[in-house]
Amino acid sequence: MTDILRADGRTNDQLRPVTIERGWSAQAEGSALISFGRTKVLCTASFTNGVPRWMAGKGKGWVTAEYSMLPRSTNSRMDRESVRGKIGGRTHEISRLIGRSLRAVVDMKALGENTIVIDCDVLQADGGTRTAAITGAYVALADALEWGRTKKFIGQKAQPLIDSLSAVSVGIIDGEPMLDLEYTEDVRAETDMNVVVTGRGLFVEVQGTAEGAPFDRRELDSLLDLALAGAVNLTEFQKIALENRA
Amino acid sequence: MTDILRADGRTNDQLRPVTIERGWSAQAEGSALISFGRTKVLCTASFTNGVPRWMAGKGKGWVTAEYSMLPRSTNSRMDRESVRGKIGGRTHEISRLIGRSLRAVVDMKALGENTIVIDCDVLQADGGTRTAAITGAYVALADALEWGRTKKFIGQKAQPLIDSLSAVSVGIIDGEPMLDLEYTEDVRAETDMNVVVTGRGLFVEVQGTAEGAPFDRRELDSLLDLALAGAVNLTEFQKIALENRA
Amino acid sequence: MTDILRADGRTNDQLRPVTIERGWSAQAEGSALISFGRTKVLCTASFTNGVPRWMAGKGKGWVTAEYSMLPRSTNSRMDRESVRGKIGGRTHEISRLIGRSLRAVVDMKALGENTIVIDCDVLQADGGTRTAAITGAYVALADALEWGRTKKFIGQKAQPLIDSLSAVSVGIIDGEPMLDLEYTEDVRAETDMNVVVTGRGLFVEVQGTAEGAPFDRRELDSLLDLALAGAVNLTEFQKIALENRA
Amino acid sequence: MTDILRADGRTNDQLRPVTIERGWSAQAEGSALISFGRTKVLCTASFTNGVPRWMAGKGKGWVTAEYSMLPRSTNSRMDRESVRGKIGGRTHEISRLIGRSLRAVVDMKALGENTIVIDCDVLQADGGTRTAAITGAYVALADALEWGRTKKFIGQKAQPLIDSLSAVSVGIIDGEPMLDLEYTEDVRAETDMNVVVTGRGLFVEVQGTAEGAPFDRRELDSLLDLALAGAVNLTEFQKIALENRA
Amino acid sequence: MTDILRADGRTNDQLRPVTIERGWSAQAEGSALISFGRTKVLCTASFTNGVPRWMAGKGKGWVTAEYSMLPRSTNSRMDRESVRGKIGGRTHEISRLIGRSLRAVVDMKALGENTIVIDCDVLQADGGTRTAAITGAYVALADALEWGRTKKFIGQKAQPLIDSLSAVSVGIIDGEPMLDLEYTEDVRAETDMNVVVTGRGLFVEVQGTAEGAPFDRRELDSLLDLALAGAVNLTEFQKIALENRA
Amino acid sequence: MTDILRADGRTNDQLRPVTIERGWSAQAEGSALISFGRTKVLCTASFTNGVPRWMAGKGKGWVTAEYSMLPRSTNSRMDRESVRGKIGGRTHEISRLIGRSLRAVVDMKALGENTIVIDCDVLQADGGTRTAAITGAYVALADALEWGRTKKFIGQKAQPLIDSLSAVSVGIIDGEPMLDLEYTEDVRAETDMNVVVTGRGLFVEVQGTAEGAPFDRRELDSLLDLALAGAVNLTEFQKIALENRA
Repeated sequence: MTDILRADGRTNDQLRPVTIERGWSAQAEGSALISFGRTKVLCTASFTNGVPRWMAGKGKGWVTAEYSMLPRSTNSRMDRESVRGKIGGRTHEISRLIGRSLRAVVDMKALGENTIVIDCDVLQADGGTRTAAITGAYVALADALEWGRTKKFIGQKAQPLIDSLSAVSVGIIDGEPMLDLEYTEDVRAETDMNVVVTGRGLFVEVQGTAEGAPFDRRELDSLLDLALAGAVNLTEFQKIALENRA
Repeated sequence: MTDILRADGRTNDQLRPVTIERGWSAQAEGSALISFGRTKVLCTASFTNGVPRWMAGKGKGWVTAEYSMLPRSTNSRMDRESVRGKIGGRTHEISRLIGRSLRAVVDMKALGENTIVIDCDVLQADGGTRTAAITGAYVALADALEWGRTKKFIGQKAQPLIDSLSAVSVGIIDGEPMLDLEYTEDVRAETDMNVVVTGRGLFVEVQGTAEGAPFDRRELDSLLDLALAGAVNLTEFQKIALENRA
Repeated sequence: MTDILRADGRTNDQLRPVTIERGWSAQAEGSALISFGRTKVLCTASFTNGVPRWMAGKGKGWVTAEYSMLPRSTNSRMDRESVRGKIGGRTHEISRLIGRSLRAVVDMKALGENTIVIDCDVLQADGGTRTAAITGAYVALADALEWGRTKKFIGQKAQPLIDSLSAVSVGIIDGEPMLDLEYTEDVRAETDMNVVVTGRGLFVEVQGTAEGAPFDRRELDSLLDLALAGAVNLTEFQKIALENRA
Repeated sequence: MTDILRADGRTNDQLRPVTIERGWSAQAEGSALISFGRTKVLCTASFTNGVPRWMAGKGKGWVTAEYSMLPRSTNSRMDRESVRGKIGGRTHEISRLIGRSLRAVVDMKALGENTIVIDCDVLQADGGTRTAAITGAYVALADALEWGRTKKFIGQKAQPLIDSLSAVSVGIIDGEPMLDLEYTEDVRAETDMNVVVTGRGLFVEVQGTAEGAPFDRRELDSLLDLALAGAVNLTEFQKIALENRA
Repeated sequence: MTDILRADGRTNDQLRPVTIERGWSAQAEGSALISFGRTKVLCTASFTNGVPRWMAGKGKGWVTAEYSMLPRSTNSRMDRESVRGKIGGRTHEISRLIGRSLRAVVDMKALGENTIVIDCDVLQADGGTRTAAITGAYVALADALEWGRTKKFIGQKAQPLIDSLSAVSVGIIDGEPMLDLEYTEDVRAETDMNVVVTGRGLFVEVQGTAEGAPFDRRELDSLLDLALAGAVNLTEFQKIALENRA
Repeated sequence: MTDILRADGRTNDQLRPVTIERGWSAQAEGSALISFGRTKVLCTASFTNGVPRWMAGKGKGWVTAEYSMLPRSTNSRMDRESVRGKIGGRTHEISRLIGRSLRAVVDMKALGENTIVIDCDVLQADGGTRTAAITGAYVALADALEWGRTKKFIGQKAQPLIDSLSAVSVGIIDGEPMLDLEYTEDVRAETDMNVVVTGRGLFVEVQGTAEGAPFDRRELDSLLDLALAGAVNLTEFQKIALENRA
């Protein structure tokens, strides 16, 4: 495996620099400004006591997410979805992915009748925005849950967080599997995969797409190997960020 | 592996009855009414000479898809997206999946500056609508390409179809991997995966989701095994449907 | 009156072949796939116990309808109304016509506080889609009412159906009044009229439009004669379709 | 036939007081503020040289119409369609009726490549808004055509107006056919019909609807008789309004 | 100060002819058709007993406003906002301005739990539509409040109207401050200001905008002088219109 | 004048701490992350060579702006305007204000046929978001213009920037005029004014609103005094931020 392909000098199995500014927002119940290289996503978690009417009375909570990109988070300016009057398919798809992934590590019974809305707003995009969003959203979520416990909306013994959660992209470029693609790599990838993994190393989502040529079982396996290894590192960053919690 | 779990008496690795009524529409350039058990999807392919303005002059074609469900294709009536004035996230997501998957088996250069729009309208839904849609859409697409050749919009020697394409769902229910879930099974599945495979057995899309508990590598592998075997059968149904082509 | 004008060899006062597949849908409380020649409309009736809030407490039911065309039901593909984000005037107009017509043969007191939504989705269009829709919708409605009686949402002695209902188009082409226009005839018609008639031969709707030259009283009369005669035949087809009801 | 039914003392075959303020707008190329009793509609005709792109190069013009009600033109305030973000079915239907009716009396070849948009805004509604709109729109249209001739957008010898046009409502109340229903009558009518008639007494639109019981041929005939007689009077009012034209 | 600049011969500190037709609408609880020269705005006030749910139980009322222009109120026809499916920024801005201004002269406690919606529909536009709208809206509001008192929705001793309210535009053209700009003047103005003033001469809104060159303190002062003087006259017109109130 | 009123200990004529992180975005042609106390706004300027079609060929450029708030920039989460499918009146109003203000200091001839879109996204809101946005937008704009010059889209001698621009809020609380209101102050203010001022001290916008009681001329004057003094300070911060420009 030659590693000379990557613009920024990384090896194929190396993440970009990761930073997590926990508690970036003075207002949200949980928040994190996460960066994967130049990709920056502001994740906030809004905790509300109560659930939507259609869920009430079941003793269970709800977690949902919304993803969006600032119009000039990209190289050329995109129109705002609010101005166009509708949300695009990609935005919908990623919002659903983030919400579904987070719900996989939350015990809704333990959460009780509370709602958490996670907003992931991409301030700067350079590939991997959805994986950075999920990784940062977990930190915001953990703090919002802690806030709910402090405010007694969540029982003192309840354990709503089943596991931690991170996500990373992998892809095949010129036949080489690579971890955590930046935008210029993403564009060149023949196969592109986003993998959401729990802290214990179990899969929550595996989404692999042949952008160029279809891929075989062996390639799929090597991508999963890379992703699982990358997720171990991301979990470490999350632990450090959350370390000084009460 | 006990097979007594399935309501309709199928074994875990068995597809539901598949029928493909090729040429169902008197008007579309290609069409198929496909059924996977009670799931019925009408797939039409509309061929237009020319491409959208932003693609013109590159000598390449374009294939796209739209998926929709009739309001009473389901057990209880859903509101129409046209009445609500916006397309939901799930619809967007599946439309994008179908289009992306089909593009993976089309050589856009060989297609030339022509556009094919595939419409997949679910007339009756009982699980697996997106996989039935992709499997039927391939048949409609193949006929539309043939129509384009007959009309000389596509060169006589051009081979726009690189491979055939089918899709199938797999899932884990009570710990057992199962093929081609019907609705009641889908609801119970802990893990749910849609796999899009070419006739040569390569992956185009792998979308696995933990609906209940996260899944491990061994479970993932057994699901992929089931899906690949199911795809071989679907490819056979497609061949038969397309057999009497000129 | 020479009858050699019609492309398919029909006489001026002849319907196209009519088929009604009652119970096409495995899920709806009533359904019919109706065809007038190449025009095919899937009609489903969804029965819900209860009425919208603004109608509650009056002891009366509600019947409404929605009409839509699949994007490739026509010769060239139309954009979906869900994608355009709004419903066009023609769709609105026909939905309202169908709902209003059906309500004319339903005794809302006898229906009780129940709601029936009729969906008429045009799978293939070759003229007369609204008249086929009304004729098929009546069959779906009749079955949904029977279902409601079986489920005891409607009293055993209540007679919510006042009369049967069918609809047919008539028009003047080259000065000749003709029954049940197909698309190519519709385009050429100087005057175009849709007539909704009860089984007893009374008018529910008469909608005549001068597409070319205005029409006089004598022409109007001859069109009404044709329509009433055609409706007698349609009523017969409905009776046969509904014959084997419990 | 007893005539004591009507609240305002009219006989069954009598119109409400009609006034037409021609040229009400200082800006439009043609305009009329028409009243049928308390119903008041402001009709403006906007003349543009040229046609929409899809019509260009055919030497033909285009006439279209939009109908709308002010939010407090009615007894209780309605939400604005602009605020709700979509146009309702009734508005669509009436806009289409007005446009279609006016086109029936315009020779598009004689109009040449010019577009006329008629806006009918209901300032006060008391039944018959669509018929008042059509009757007033004709006056605005006639003036806009004259303006086009003055400006030489229309040839000096061209005769774009084939005939004059008016419209009136008729209905059956307690078994009695009545002309020009005001709102309280409209609500009580068993059958309701709008008839659009040319100055020569030919039909352009006949739209009869059974609001209560279906109607028979004899009732239909008596309604048409009333409508034709009413249209003669409306044509007279239009002539007077347009009298002092150059 | 030379006064020869103005097209209609007015002096710089002179209003256009003002007319107020109080009670123009037969249906609204209060109404006025106001004209400032060729600018004509129909203002209606709709009184409803009760307040929106989020305000209930506080013993306070609510006043809001909507502004809109008819499509051909202007020199060239504008698209309807209902057809475009969204309300433009200017419309939003003016609706908010009118509502906010009126609320400044209403004592919400004295109004009690009642809602008044003011609709200001511009029938003809020649500059100053928002100031005419506010001035006319006050008259409609006053009558609606009186209606509410007559109907006992407002207490007999309650004084919901704190003060009267009028508005006027001022601007600088070729260095000259001028009152009540008509459209052609508005276009030429370097600075444009709308001032909303109570009958006692206090400011409710001051909105000054440099359309051309920024303006200095002295210019601002001279514009405010003109506006305050103009408002005194408008207050007089309102008093006359409201004079014969019970 | 007692200064003990303000929560953060400021005097009435004191700004909150101001920071400007110029060049925050790696992608935009100009950018600034500005903070007025806890209020944080990310301003990016997107430079495009060329103008919208309707402006082409006049040798003039265009500057426009869009303002938006992240859903959790506020104390309680707001729905996204993209999700609601429409932009609210307040957003429209502020976007228009920012664009109009910036255009007042740009010589469109000197800009040439180039377009600059300024996006102001509020990351955290604590009062004064629109004034912070304008103040930061000026810095982003200045850099984007410099970028355009470097890329030769703007002539080397052209001076598109006529003056600098800043904005500040002022208000009256308990009778005391105060500068730069934070959210809790804004809520209490009787009168609220936003003032946009050039570096030379001329007014571009003056928007004063009586939230509680109407205000008199003397109060207006004292607010303008405060605003002009505050703007001098803001101009100083802008100069420092832009100091190290080539």
